[in-house]
Amino acid sequence: MHRHEMNASGSIKIVFQPIGTRVEVSAGSTVLEAGREAGLILAANCGGNGLCGRCRVTVLGENIPAPTGAECRALSKEEIETGQRLACRAHLNGNAAVHIPRTTLGNQQRLQLDGRTRSVRVDACVRRHDIDAFAPTLEDSVSDFERITQVLNSELGGNTNWHATTRLIRDLSRLARESNWKLTVFTRGDELIGCCEAGKRPLGVAVDIGCTKIAAYLLDLETGDQLAACGIPNPQITYGEDLISRLVYARKGRKQAQELARCVQTGISKLIRELLDTLADPASAGSDQVVDLCVVGNTAMTHLFLELPADGLLAAPFIAATTSAVDVRAGEVGIDLPNDVYVHVLPAIGAFVGADHVAMILANGLHSCGHVSLGIDIGTNTEIALSKPGHGLLLTASCPAGPAFEGGHIRHGMRAAPGAIEKIKFTADGLSVKTIDDQAPVGLCGSGVIDAVAMLWQTGAVDYRGHLQPDVAGVRQGVSGKEYLLVEAKDSGHGKDIVITQQDISEVQLAKAAVAASVRTLLTLSNTKDDEIDELVLAGAFGTYLDVESSIAIGLLPNLPNASYLQAGNAAGTGAKMALVSSGMREQASHISRLAVRIDLIQQKNFNRELALATRFPKNQPECGSEKEKQTC
Amino acid sequence: MHRHEMNASGSIKIVFQPIGTRVEVSAGSTVLEAGREAGLILAANCGGNGLCGRCRVTVLGENIPAPTGAECRALSKEEIETGQRLACRAHLNGNAAVHIPRTTLGNQQRLQLDGRTRSVRVDACVRRHDIDAFAPTLEDSVSDFERITQVLNSELGGNTNWHATTRLIRDLSRLARESNWKLTVFTRGDELIGCCEAGKRPLGVAVDIGCTKIAAYLLDLETGDQLAACGIPNPQITYGEDLISRLVYARKGRKQAQELARCVQTGISKLIRELLDTLADPASAGSDQVVDLCVVGNTAMTHLFLELPADGLLAAPFIAATTSAVDVRAGEVGIDLPNDVYVHVLPAIGAFVGADHVAMILANGLHSCGHVSLGIDIGTNTEIALSKPGHGLLLTASCPAGPAFEGGHIRHGMRAAPGAIEKIKFTADGLSVKTIDDQAPVGLCGSGVIDAVAMLWQTGAVDYRGHLQPDVAGVRQGVSGKEYLLVEAKDSGHGKDIVITQQDISEVQLAKAAVAASVRTLLTLSNTKDDEIDELVLAGAFGTYLDVESSIAIGLLPNLPNASYLQAGNAAGTGAKMALVSSGMREQASHISRLAVRIDLIQQKNFNRELALATRFPKNQPECGSEKEKQTC
Repeated sequence: MHRHEMNASGSIKIVFQPIGTRVEVSAGSTVLEAGREAGLILAANCGGNGLCGRCRVTVLGENIPAPTGAECRALSKEEIETGQRLACRAHLNGNAAVHIPRTTLGNQQRLQLDGRTRSVRVDACVRRHDIDAFAPTLEDSVSDFERITQVLNSELGGNTNWHATTRLIRDLSRLARESNWKLTVFTRGDELIGCCEAGKRPLGVAVDIGCTKIAAYLLDLETGDQLAACGIPNPQITYGEDLISRLVYARKGRKQAQELARCVQTGISKLIRELLDTLADPASAGSDQVVDLCVVGNTAMTHLFLELPADGLLAAPFIAATTSAVDVRAGEVGIDLPNDVYVHVLPAIGAFVGADHVAMILANGLHSCGHVSLGIDIGTNTEIALSKPGHGLLLTASCPAGPAFEGGHIRHGMRAAPGAIEKIKFTADGLSVKTIDDQAPVGLCGSGVIDAVAMLWQTGAVDYRGHLQPDVAGVRQGVSGKEYLLVEAKDSGHGKDIVITQQDISEVQLAKAAVAASVRTLLTLSNTKDDEIDELVLAGAFGTYLDVESSIAIGLLPNLPNASYLQAGNAAGTGAKMALVSSGMREQASHISRLAVRIDLIQQKNFNRELALATRFPKNQPECGSEKEKQTC
Repeated sequence: MHRHEMNASGSIKIVFQPIGTRVEVSAGSTVLEAGREAGLILAANCGGNGLCGRCRVTVLGENIPAPTGAECRALSKEEIETGQRLACRAHLNGNAAVHIPRTTLGNQQRLQLDGRTRSVRVDACVRRHDIDAFAPTLEDSVSDFERITQVLNSELGGNTNWHATTRLIRDLSRLARESNWKLTVFTRGDELIGCCEAGKRPLGVAVDIGCTKIAAYLLDLETGDQLAACGIPNPQITYGEDLISRLVYARKGRKQAQELARCVQTGISKLIRELLDTLADPASAGSDQVVDLCVVGNTAMTHLFLELPADGLLAAPFIAATTSAVDVRAGEVGIDLPNDVYVHVLPAIGAFVGADHVAMILANGLHSCGHVSLGIDIGTNTEIALSKPGHGLLLTASCPAGPAFEGGHIRHGMRAAPGAIEKIKFTADGLSVKTIDDQAPVGLCGSGVIDAVAMLWQTGAVDYRGHLQPDVAGVRQGVSGKEYLLVEAKDSGHGKDIVITQQDISEVQLAKAAVAASVRTLLTLSNTKDDEIDELVLAGAFGTYLDVESSIAIGLLPNLPNASYLQAGNAAGTGAKMALVSSGMREQASHISRLAVRIDLIQQKNFNRELALATRFPKNQPECGSEKEKQTC
């Protein structure tokens, strides 16, 4: 029926719309595979298994593949007839154009780059030394390396026994002779790790590997100033939106684990180039000046990045290969830099409380400040820290809150991309929604979901058990039970109603209960009363954008009478930056990792009861519109 | 004229006789290239440039290549007619058998493996620890790496912050789970560098990279016992017998430098396998137990091995890239071992006084013993150390003595292979010669050359200027001047006369003068009288086999009234073994490298006068047959 166009080698040409990216792939590839090949990041929440229905695309032209069973289940007859397919299921057998809607293309998601910054004394591990040595003569025949280290020792007034890799000894010899013995060298402990033209300053890169994004920051290692920041979606997303899919893929074998590692490693290399390119005067900074890296991420992310065995993270008793800080040569983890740079990966606390959480505690000084504080990083996996420095106590726990807060398992949920509803207010004039980039609404991101549920509860559209009340305006019967109409088709960006369903509300109840019960259990265990808590720090992208009132209203966050609520932004990234420019901060991170006590919530006898109670909405809700003391940075 | 047999791809088949090695090479390859391809080491003293005439072979069969100009100059008409060719010049254009005579095949040379051994306290850098840990449970969810390091710390009673490469963390996780948490780990400083099955002992390999041979020793790192030793000719020989040819080749570019490095690195890997295979119970020792390596060699050899830039060694002011000790991962220098083993290369003193000389000083304790001593390693490049510990003085110098002592530039000279004359005595019954392996004589190796010249001088066949006396029996007129008949054609292994020529005698005079003048200059500089010297240590293969009486007779060695003469064998190898099993010895080696003062002999104003004087034979010669006090080990 369709005319298949293939060349002799069986490859076909695909063009992606509206971006215009072209790629040649072998016939029979899925749209998802072709997209990966083209460097595009398509939503594949279920790991490309045809289950989530999120990776919708439209195949244009003559070579539209026949729909598979999964596609018939996920898409309406009309959608299928207009060429809509699932990217993970549709096998392309001829040249085609593929249109990727905004909601499927991951590249546009909003990145959270900034965090609250404690002031840090700059004291980087890597130091710069300007060398001006005499050229060798018959009377002064000291070897190249010793010639340079003698100058170093005489400047530093010590007698260090310097060492270096053979690669660096080679580069030093060459550069010293080319520069007539005037050059800059970089040291780390008693090792020479790099060299470059005389007078160039040392730079470092802090990296936060998140499940959905990788953020990177370029800092001056001498002043601590941030020179540039950028971020990309985590390229592993095409192997599954959630951690588990990726860990399962890595477990398949060495090749697969390498594939996932390379993917992040290449992403970081790309980010380093981008950071250098964004500088006002790119000529002033070369990759030979990037002489230190500091990486954070949750334990799964750092294991996948370092290609460490992650099998232990997949089943009880959930054991990491290592939770210590790891120092590894950049070259060993696929990051090519001209000098023998190390990558420092911050220590973790456990299999589900990773280096990113250590960095969050570090960034907010939870371990060292004088008051009682709670730190919460809400996400698919939520990490919680309770610090009582007066008692030398730092409790940490993690709970799988599920993907509801990231728009997952929510009928019209989506990631924080343009057109996502992020705020909902119910005023005298009725419902008002605020979308990302003020585009016509196409779905709800996490903060919008919370606001929607809070609004339903505060307006009485649901009862304390979360049941939609049939007699309330906006509540109607949908295809799969009750639902509430948020945006009418005529006002939406895709011409369809946007609703929140009874099922969506239940998902939010389960998710918020997991967080609330975990917090409650930690408070009970440590014998801490609500009024003792001085500060509640919300870290991470979701914690930054959620509405604190709404979160308290639905019982996601506790209502603490004496606490200030701080939305700390990307605290993990901030911690990584601090550890990048300060040896002392690296020591503090190791201290945090040793000090922290992991609480296995499932083992706590009251946890299940707390969980059941916490699914309800709190009766003692604050009045709509009252402002709690809160700070945002 | 010749029928050329080639297959479609233009390759031809060559069989080497009498060994029977077969190889397929492309038509037009030289015999030398085909030999390299087959893994054979053919003598190519001049680096394969058709100059030395040493690489004689006989091409058999129908496809004998036409002789080149160089071959016509180097070979007699008769030899050419019987198929003799130079391996470096003869291009093979069809299938052929090639006969390689004993004198051309480098594989059979005698290796010097043993040296005098000072007693050393065993204190290896790498230590073994047997781990027996509890398996993780829900209640005890410490990560794999910390689980192991916690056991280490509790056993060692410390609180070390252990680190390891990601590769080792990976291997540890796997092995720990496979072995139910009973395993052996190896540490070096605060790094975990390896793991293996429980209860296996740590082994180490000491390597001496010589110009002509590589010797390797397998030692138990806990007892210091030598378990095996073996040696191979240095595979770089096919790139030139002398250092300069190889350095010039390496200077051509990165590829060429890598080629020379790989060649030695592959040789060392091969030696490690051989060492393990020669153990009585090979099952008891696996490559995962080889956890430390210690390497010595002259500065050119260690630079070529480490692929360091060696340009500085080729021209004044002769500067090494580094003279410090280098610690490098085995994997980085092409030695594949299952664990993250380091290679420790001992420090050097200068461009021509290398790590091998430091090892010699270390092995014989010249830097630390109570008396005045001279250490001499005679070779193409001769290194000399004069130690006066009472004055805190360690002077070192090197002199290019030329290849005469290794049989080079001597008409019938050859390396120390079977059939080489190594001893000559003139007794009442006339001349008696002793050959290596008691085979029929085919040439003279270095010690034979010395004995021959000493015999000529002691019997009056030459005068003090080295001139052959025409009226003495045995002296005759040869094709290129006077010569002395040592072995008649009927008694030789190849049916030809073996002679020593006037030119040969001049070569020996120049070589011995270089050594004698160097020693004399060091003594004068340090204001040391002959009778002050307590010990003269002769290191290296040649120093072991030479006759001390003969050497004193011709003035190669000084006649020291109060000194004992010690032939110390392969002292460099011994030093490497000591440094392998003892951290203290590594520190002493660094101390030697810092303490030693290099004397540039050419810069010394009296050196040229001493050199001219020392070409003469000493009139005050000891009586023939008188025995000096001497020790051999």
